[in-house]
Amino acid sequence: MSTDPLIVFTPSGKRGHFAVGTPILTAARQLGVDLDSVCGGRGICSKCQITPSYGEFSKHGVTANADALSEWNAVEERYKSKRGLKQGRRLGCQATVQGDIVIDVPPESQVHRQVVRKAASARAITMDPATRLYFVEVEEPDMHSPTGDLERLERALKEQWQIAGITAELSLLSKLQPVLRKGKWQVTVALHADHRGGTAKVIEIWPGLHEAGLYGLAIDLGSTTIAAHLTDLDTGAVIASSGLMNPQIRFGEDLMSRVSYAMMNPGGDTDMTRAVRDALNELVGSIAEEGGIDPSLIVETVFVCNPVMHHLLLGLDPVELGQAPFALATSASLTLPAHDLDLTTMNPRAQVYILPCIAGHVGADAAAVALSEEPGKSEDLVLVVDVGTNAEILLGNTEQVLACSSPTGPAFEGAQISSGQRAAPGAIERIEINPETKEPRFRVIGSDIWSDEDGFAEATASTGITGICGSGIIEAVAEMRMAGLLDDSGLIGSAAQTGTARAVPEGRTHAYLIHDETATGGPRITVTQGDIRAIQLAKSALYAGARLLMDEMGVDRVDRVVLAGAFGAHISTKHAMVLGMIPDAPLDKVTSAGNAAGTGARIALCNIAARAEIERVVREITKVETAIEPRFQEHFVAANAIPHKTDPFPELAKIVTLPQCRFNTNSGDDGGGRRRRRRA
Amino acid sequence: MSTDPLIVFTPSGKRGHFAVGTPILTAARQLGVDLDSVCGGRGICSKCQITPSYGEFSKHGVTANADALSEWNAVEERYKSKRGLKQGRRLGCQATVQGDIVIDVPPESQVHRQVVRKAASARAITMDPATRLYFVEVEEPDMHSPTGDLERLERALKEQWQIAGITAELSLLSKLQPVLRKGKWQVTVALHADHRGGTAKVIEIWPGLHEAGLYGLAIDLGSTTIAAHLTDLDTGAVIASSGLMNPQIRFGEDLMSRVSYAMMNPGGDTDMTRAVRDALNELVGSIAEEGGIDPSLIVETVFVCNPVMHHLLLGLDPVELGQAPFALATSASLTLPAHDLDLTTMNPRAQVYILPCIAGHVGADAAAVALSEEPGKSEDLVLVVDVGTNAEILLGNTEQVLACSSPTGPAFEGAQISSGQRAAPGAIERIEINPETKEPRFRVIGSDIWSDEDGFAEATASTGITGICGSGIIEAVAEMRMAGLLDDSGLIGSAAQTGTARAVPEGRTHAYLIHDETATGGPRITVTQGDIRAIQLAKSALYAGARLLMDEMGVDRVDRVVLAGAFGAHISTKHAMVLGMIPDAPLDKVTSAGNAAGTGARIALCNIAARAEIERVVREITKVETAIEPRFQEHFVAANAIPHKTDPFPELAKIVTLPQCRFNTNSGDDGGGRRRRRRA
Repeated sequence: MSTDPLIVFTPSGKRGHFAVGTPILTAARQLGVDLDSVCGGRGICSKCQITPSYGEFSKHGVTANADALSEWNAVEERYKSKRGLKQGRRLGCQATVQGDIVIDVPPESQVHRQVVRKAASARAITMDPATRLYFVEVEEPDMHSPTGDLERLERALKEQWQIAGITAELSLLSKLQPVLRKGKWQVTVALHADHRGGTAKVIEIWPGLHEAGLYGLAIDLGSTTIAAHLTDLDTGAVIASSGLMNPQIRFGEDLMSRVSYAMMNPGGDTDMTRAVRDALNELVGSIAEEGGIDPSLIVETVFVCNPVMHHLLLGLDPVELGQAPFALATSASLTLPAHDLDLTTMNPRAQVYILPCIAGHVGADAAAVALSEEPGKSEDLVLVVDVGTNAEILLGNTEQVLACSSPTGPAFEGAQISSGQRAAPGAIERIEINPETKEPRFRVIGSDIWSDEDGFAEATASTGITGICGSGIIEAVAEMRMAGLLDDSGLIGSAAQTGTARAVPEGRTHAYLIHDETATGGPRITVTQGDIRAIQLAKSALYAGARLLMDEMGVDRVDRVVLAGAFGAHISTKHAMVLGMIPDAPLDKVTSAGNAAGTGARIALCNIAARAEIERVVREITKVETAIEPRFQEHFVAANAIPHKTDPFPELAKIVTLPQCRFNTNSGDDGGGRRRRRRA
Repeated sequence: MSTDPLIVFTPSGKRGHFAVGTPILTAARQLGVDLDSVCGGRGICSKCQITPSYGEFSKHGVTANADALSEWNAVEERYKSKRGLKQGRRLGCQATVQGDIVIDVPPESQVHRQVVRKAASARAITMDPATRLYFVEVEEPDMHSPTGDLERLERALKEQWQIAGITAELSLLSKLQPVLRKGKWQVTVALHADHRGGTAKVIEIWPGLHEAGLYGLAIDLGSTTIAAHLTDLDTGAVIASSGLMNPQIRFGEDLMSRVSYAMMNPGGDTDMTRAVRDALNELVGSIAEEGGIDPSLIVETVFVCNPVMHHLLLGLDPVELGQAPFALATSASLTLPAHDLDLTTMNPRAQVYILPCIAGHVGADAAAVALSEEPGKSEDLVLVVDVGTNAEILLGNTEQVLACSSPTGPAFEGAQISSGQRAAPGAIERIEINPETKEPRFRVIGSDIWSDEDGFAEATASTGITGICGSGIIEAVAEMRMAGLLDDSGLIGSAAQTGTARAVPEGRTHAYLIHDETATGGPRITVTQGDIRAIQLAKSALYAGARLLMDEMGVDRVDRVVLAGAFGAHISTKHAMVLGMIPDAPLDKVTSAGNAAGTGARIALCNIAARAEIERVVREITKVETAIEPRFQEHFVAANAIPHKTDPFPELAKIVTLPQCRFNTNSGDDGGGRRRRRRA
């Protein structure tokens, strides 16, 4: 048995004997303990902080005396006085072992620390990003043994970090020489590792120790909205979230109308590509400002998007995606430099990772949902519905996973809705209609107070009441149905039919008035017949897609439903079920996963192994094509009604069904027109 | 023993038994016989043409009957009637074996055919370019088993050509879908193989069988001139050669003045980079036009250049190359897409290969000379001198190779010479001066007739006599020395001192008048004292570099000398030795290798294995730095004179040495001024 001191690391429990004088960092590395270090043990980065424990630890069979570690040294003192060091902490590269000891590695000193996701499922992400920092000391040039600066940097990385080889773009090469000299041959490089085994790439280089961190963006590029999360690649923390409307909307509101635009207008695809890239550049600038960081510190970006967005982002004509057999130019994941996508406001050498597409209608966003919600790891049969302009639908369990997408249109995101708006302060997000009085009460984003409660006016004074967001419109339509303001075909009754003055004439149909400030020059917020039609089409498409997958699998019910989407965190599952958006399931088995696609993007951003995993998972998913499937049309037509069903929500008042079921249906049916256009 | 028919292939001698009905192409592949095919045996590319031989071949032990191959078939007939097929030829993919047969593979059907170099050494280049054509049939998309078009192309290449994997740029991806459909799922791709083992890259794609060939450029990017050879990547033939002046000359005539320009002017390096890239784009356009090809068929370019040109081409600030320790940003070879260098007139996805640099003063051009002249494979000690604005000097044998470079300035290229011009029709390239009469006779580029022969006026009527090129000025100075017009310090004597009216006053010094058309408004061509000084400085630098390498190796003579350079094919070795450009060697051991750097570039262009070879060779070369070596200065000063030596050329009249050795030397010494500027 060794007489060398025993070191026990917690929480890993790894242990070993080491010669007196061995630095704790060295011991940790030899044992494979997850202890971070950027400077390679030079006492300048402080990433290797550890907490020694003294005393008797019967659990570990260790008695640690006060002199079990070397004395506090000058390097630690300098670091503590300059930057501060928590009580009880030591630097693992400075403290050396003198006797038996228990060493705790605090979470922030672990390379592969875990980040708890905010989403309901609360699974953790293990930090292991593709791009990491390495501090190196590079040999100075010697004209008698001439080699290039890059080759000496490569050698230093090999000797000091065991990195096999590197590549660098010309733009990096052009700053290499001045930075090496400014740093007096000590530099920090950001290296991007290829998860498919290629050579590591130098993304950035700084003189001396770089302490401003590295950041990444997880971007959910939707047809209607673009949502981005700025993430600290060291801690995994989301330091800013931002979104904007997809400017391609001016070329067509849904995917097929954008494909049509590309087909009908020479160069139309290029125009759309430029529009989205410009918007992304703007988004990068604003999110970096919001996060208080230099945008050049953004060295990684992960995109999830549907196939049409995917092609338009890449500058590929989406025309083949508009017709059977819906062939993608490429379905595999992509890793490419940001400048290839004209993304110039982040670090131009930032590496972009785009998740693989599942099929011509089932994109990288669906792959991201699969990565986040892991239906293939579910024991019970789960239906995952990602609600967006295009809905991505996954059905599966450990045995099989099916996927399809369904063209819901942008209504669920508040677009194509007369008083619709995106989810922002002032937007109505919750609404209830009293089935007796037909009077509404609502809440707006930015305030917790209902409109019929005291202090509502004060609470909304700064934002006003500006419109209805996606979750608000779903509740409004469901509430209107439950309050007897709609028949099961979705027609709004007149004031005479419904018995409320809030049913106001609107052209040849009626609208339900929620809020009216026109007297004081403010907005007038209604739900029109066109709005109802748009929601009906959207929910029918969603429902039909889910039913189609159930048919394929030969089941007529699912064990649980996960609702996701850009507004997934806000959607009311009970209203979604009243509306018939999703197949019936026990209400307690319907959960909301928030922006699962965005979460999938974050996972791929923070953990390089997740990229290989989703690439494998996507190959195993069975794709179902809705566009040519007659049963999809059948389900779609059948799902158009908003039938009266047994009230699943006893806390709500009894649903009143209108006796008059035949309103005039020769009304302006906006939704049907849109539908025909999309199918044309 | 097999009863299957025996096939003997010539010239390889490979042989084997194959079942009746085996296509000759299949047999060739199984035996490893070098038989080309682009279409993979589909009878459409005709690359696999073979010549069967019938009769008794005792040498091969084969008797081939007339029915030893299958009958001429419809595919061959269609090919012959459409494209023509030489008498006796068959298509190897169509003709099948029926009995014993001898099959000759003609040179044009060999993949690795050999191309005889035009240079004196006449070594052959084996064709094995990095970029090759592959015809493939790609599976059509199936929406029930969705994969991207790129993934199906990848699978086709794997199944039909055993290619492991491919990558493609976005610009290629954007044309993939229309080309696949236009070619009805049959396409030809140009694939670039990475000699370091990376994944093959799709450079271009054409519908159906691409028959317009592939081309490459070998470019010698000199400080003064840029020379390019347009090469057929199938046959290795040079189909056009073109050159132009390096436009960077306006920023500084020699390398160090360009480095100074970059140091003194913010953005100066960028200006020079833009200038050379613009010139290259222009050169690509003109050489493609000259060769009668579409410039987008240029899919490969190899560059050789000195380190300063190397950095300026790459967009790297050359400032570190202007001061010890002369650190390169990168010394390794580079493979990058043409668009990274803004080379947009060739195929934008063309791959550029830049040879490795040997040291901060010894560039990729010296590496190319090493690849072409192979001093490391020489049994005797060879000195290779590549004469340009910077001279690259190699000294070695199988045991060791040393390299250095020497700043000769552009005088040898006709620049900084009062009547100098680049080698073009009308330039004086050969000159003799009668030592008795001091009268000159000369020849100009574009005519074989000497100026004192009948018909000279008519022969030069179209070009005129416009100036003196690099090889002409070397002959002029050597001839002036041999005719007694110069003393050994290089001073031109007056008319009184030399006894000829051609020694005309020029400022405070004299000039030698070669040709005068001023009476008719034409040019007046002289060699001035400034010209002599420029040549003296250039030749001293060259000589000192060679001597320094000899010192390093501990020798005071070499076995043979190879003179190379942009004008290497034209340089007169005897005049070079009279001038003292190179150390003494037996005249028959002094050979001219033409543009060895350009030849090295061509070798690397045509043969991918040569890239790996030169990368290995460069690592083994010992670098000698002239700039800080005191002995270089000593050799330089000592070499400044043009001493009287024993006439090595008995066919010339006896050299007259002037008795007057002390002319007034307070003359306008242009060369010295230049020298000081360069060293500043």
